[in-house]
Amino acid sequence: MEAIDLRHHLNTLSVSRCPSPLKDIMAYMAIDGMISFAGGLPHTSLFPFVDLEATVYSSNVDLHSTASRELIRLTIHKDNKNDGQAVDLATSLQYSSSAGLPWLLNYTHEFTRTVFRPAYKNFEVLLNEGNTDGLSKVVSLLCEAGDFILTEKQTYPTAQAVWIPMGCNSVPIEMDAEGMRSDALEDALRSWDSDHPGAKRPHVLYTVPTGQNPTGCTMSARRKQEVYAICVKYDIIIVEDDPYYFLQFDEYHFGKGKQNGYALAPYDESSFLSSLERTFLNFDTEGRVIRLDTFSKTLAPGNRIGWFTCNPVFTERLLRATEVVTQTPSGWSQAILSELLRSWGISGYMRWLSGLQREYAVRRNWMCDALGEAFDIKTGTSDEGLVVYGKGTKVRLFSFVPPRTGMFLWWKLYLEENQDFLAVKAEAGDEDPEAVFERKLWKELVDEKVLLTPGSYYIPWQGKDKTSIATSGREYGVIFFRIAFSLTTKEDMALGVQRMAQVLCRSWGLA
Amino acid sequence: MEAIDLRHHLNTLSVSRCPSPLKDIMAYMAIDGMISFAGGLPHTSLFPFVDLEATVYSSNVDLHSTASRELIRLTIHKDNKNDGQAVDLATSLQYSSSAGLPWLLNYTHEFTRTVFRPAYKNFEVLLNEGNTDGLSKVVSLLCEAGDFILTEKQTYPTAQAVWIPMGCNSVPIEMDAEGMRSDALEDALRSWDSDHPGAKRPHVLYTVPTGQNPTGCTMSARRKQEVYAICVKYDIIIVEDDPYYFLQFDEYHFGKGKQNGYALAPYDESSFLSSLERTFLNFDTEGRVIRLDTFSKTLAPGNRIGWFTCNPVFTERLLRATEVVTQTPSGWSQAILSELLRSWGISGYMRWLSGLQREYAVRRNWMCDALGEAFDIKTGTSDEGLVVYGKGTKVRLFSFVPPRTGMFLWWKLYLEENQDFLAVKAEAGDEDPEAVFERKLWKELVDEKVLLTPGSYYIPWQGKDKTSIATSGREYGVIFFRIAFSLTTKEDMALGVQRMAQVLCRSWGLA
Repeated sequence: MEAIDLRHHLNTLSVSRCPSPLKDIMAYMAIDGMISFAGGLPHTSLFPFVDLEATVYSSNVDLHSTASRELIRLTIHKDNKNDGQAVDLATSLQYSSSAGLPWLLNYTHEFTRTVFRPAYKNFEVLLNEGNTDGLSKVVSLLCEAGDFILTEKQTYPTAQAVWIPMGCNSVPIEMDAEGMRSDALEDALRSWDSDHPGAKRPHVLYTVPTGQNPTGCTMSARRKQEVYAICVKYDIIIVEDDPYYFLQFDEYHFGKGKQNGYALAPYDESSFLSSLERTFLNFDTEGRVIRLDTFSKTLAPGNRIGWFTCNPVFTERLLRATEVVTQTPSGWSQAILSELLRSWGISGYMRWLSGLQREYAVRRNWMCDALGEAFDIKTGTSDEGLVVYGKGTKVRLFSFVPPRTGMFLWWKLYLEENQDFLAVKAEAGDEDPEAVFERKLWKELVDEKVLLTPGSYYIPWQGKDKTSIATSGREYGVIFFRIAFSLTTKEDMALGVQRMAQVLCRSWGLA
Repeated sequence: MEAIDLRHHLNTLSVSRCPSPLKDIMAYMAIDGMISFAGGLPHTSLFPFVDLEATVYSSNVDLHSTASRELIRLTIHKDNKNDGQAVDLATSLQYSSSAGLPWLLNYTHEFTRTVFRPAYKNFEVLLNEGNTDGLSKVVSLLCEAGDFILTEKQTYPTAQAVWIPMGCNSVPIEMDAEGMRSDALEDALRSWDSDHPGAKRPHVLYTVPTGQNPTGCTMSARRKQEVYAICVKYDIIIVEDDPYYFLQFDEYHFGKGKQNGYALAPYDESSFLSSLERTFLNFDTEGRVIRLDTFSKTLAPGNRIGWFTCNPVFTERLLRATEVVTQTPSGWSQAILSELLRSWGISGYMRWLSGLQREYAVRRNWMCDALGEAFDIKTGTSDEGLVVYGKGTKVRLFSFVPPRTGMFLWWKLYLEENQDFLAVKAEAGDEDPEAVFERKLWKELVDEKVLLTPGSYYIPWQGKDKTSIATSGREYGVIFFRIAFSLTTKEDMALGVQRMAQVLCRSWGLA
């Protein structure tokens, strides 16, 4: 099955891009015996770099053990010495194809084919500088000023920060424990013309399907299939921004005893692969998904390397943009990742990812366990997840669904029993008291030296006249906080949770 | 003296950008004792990278000697061991400030202050991913669809490829041996409204002032001062794209014997500094210059690191764009350059640059000497430079000004005595025979395995209705080729020149 023709989704800018004639001429340089006076390239003998060595972990290190770890030494020479090197410095530090160095491009293609299994044959990959760069290029590929972009009910602010200044608005779609609701998506599209008379119909859906930022929610395969079918029906391009995809782990079983540890099953590649949720790409029979993958969360953000997977019409236009916008990802990053991944192989990288999963699962467990110590917790509905009460009280403070992926807990705080909020509400007048109270509580937490991210950061932007709770259709009497468990030690996590419990109890008048 | 307020030059997109709230919150993370659950950052212990070592040249190596070279070993640990390291991997591979790592940012600021000496106090620097990224961000900062951008008479195609798809047009300004002509610039602006009734006046001037691409021309200090004054008068922002700035060298003295070698004067920093042409920044009393510097031509293109120097209003808006467009340059690139430049110091980098100059001068001399062997050459007017004749004939083939900077020779070929061209002209009908002939001659060169860049690549884009010689105001009966001398060995250069001589003599009926 091949991608269908979706070029009518390209915006004016993107359609208008021409190949750089200089890039065009590069093909002639490769002709045997050609003497080239064409390229304005510095001579590689004039690079001051001779060679590079990096010490890295073996792919099967036990990150959780304090025992000494098996190390690998990567060596990258200036000139390829034919010892199996993926790259050499002379090539990777010279001007090169904007698509990426061939070895790394082939690796990401093969990895995508093996792990994500796109549903159509002629998908292509193209390197970028991580998902921030990737999304920026996708918006420049598809969106015009004034477009409406479908998003989850809470969405990633840096994504919105790309399209808001262009004059685009977000269209938030309700979520439940399985992710964006397909019935809500269908409703929004079916009633679009009557709800937005004269406005252009949305043709782009932006989603973080796995370990969503900020909610931590993971979209089920069933839901993806439903959403995909609706996008086919309404001719919508799905932008699958999936940086947390490989941080998938088991459910948190509350009340089954302390879970500070984590059972280490013997690693098995096929079990690892089958444990991963299916991606949109895996349902993408038409080539209407642009998937964004990155090494930022799995190797290190500073690599600034990710890749697009999409249909050839889109990769070709994205390549034209890359040539004049960023040219290529860093040669150092490409060279080091190439050698690391060559040394590990695709199987080794999967082995590494399975080890990472465990580490983030352990951190999720630390956080949930610490909350169990500091508060009283009961199991709620599937959408509520765990409901959290002031210790020794029946006062409901917040609820959260323990995430099966990613880095975040998403707290929904219930303000109906908070006298401080009711006082704010009495004074607030026209302003949303929820917004005022969120800022106040956040500041009280900061004053006790614990830093969370306010939920208001993630409110989809629907235009200047739709920022209040009433006009935007949000829920009254609740606020949200995002809590990242990725970065803190176990001790700091326990201490931070104690501080939060103290501030919350004080705010709710329980202390 | 401080920059004047130039924010009226910002375009709508740029004015509409908001700070990312997530970036905002990062400041709180630095508070002593703060436990942060705010950032979605991976834990640095989960990066598989342990340390890095790179072997580099000492800054004072003699690149021209085949003797063994003094090497330096750079080591970058995961965690800073307080041994004077500029950076560590844990920091440089983590998410970090979009402005760049502090050490490297300070270095580029200090380097800019020392070498370019901006004429106003409160200039700022901001890292980018090289001049391609830099220019793309500047166009996104200043230009609206339909803008007219002032350029040199021949201009860099990749620069135009940024603004053409936006619907912008270039306004070519005549050049002479001193660069863009100030009288022609003033004429174009003075008569703008009568020449372009109803069209918005240009407010951006794009220039490659040193070793211009493609002409190899370097703008004199006097000319820069005149151009700057006109830009003040007409309120124009100057984009000074200066990748070849440090590849300045002595004049080529034709006929003074073979110049294959190059006299090596003892290095002296103050002589080096005073030998460099003054930059636009150095005349910029108002902060209306955005200067683009890069390490691509001086260290290696694969670093993908350069920097903006401009007024604080512009750097702030460029930083907002960087946060959502590229985030930061590669951490590997930043770390390796930081350690290299820390080890060399600013003086060492200048020493390195002086060595590079000599190498490119030697290559320029090889090329000019080889031309002297293959053709008959006479000195022409200052705008013609050297006039080149078929060997042993009085048939004028082309002329060029031997460049004092950069990587390129720019040949102007005279077609009036070429029977082949006259035949093409007789057949061409409505088409420009020059364009047809250029392609034909270029193909004949390729067939003899010598690759040049056709001059037509560098024609400023003035819109679909102004592409012919007549409508665009170009000269009849001439074509241009760009010849890069940066990348070829001496032997290949001689061989390539022989091949060119053969093809040209055949084309002009001299062989």
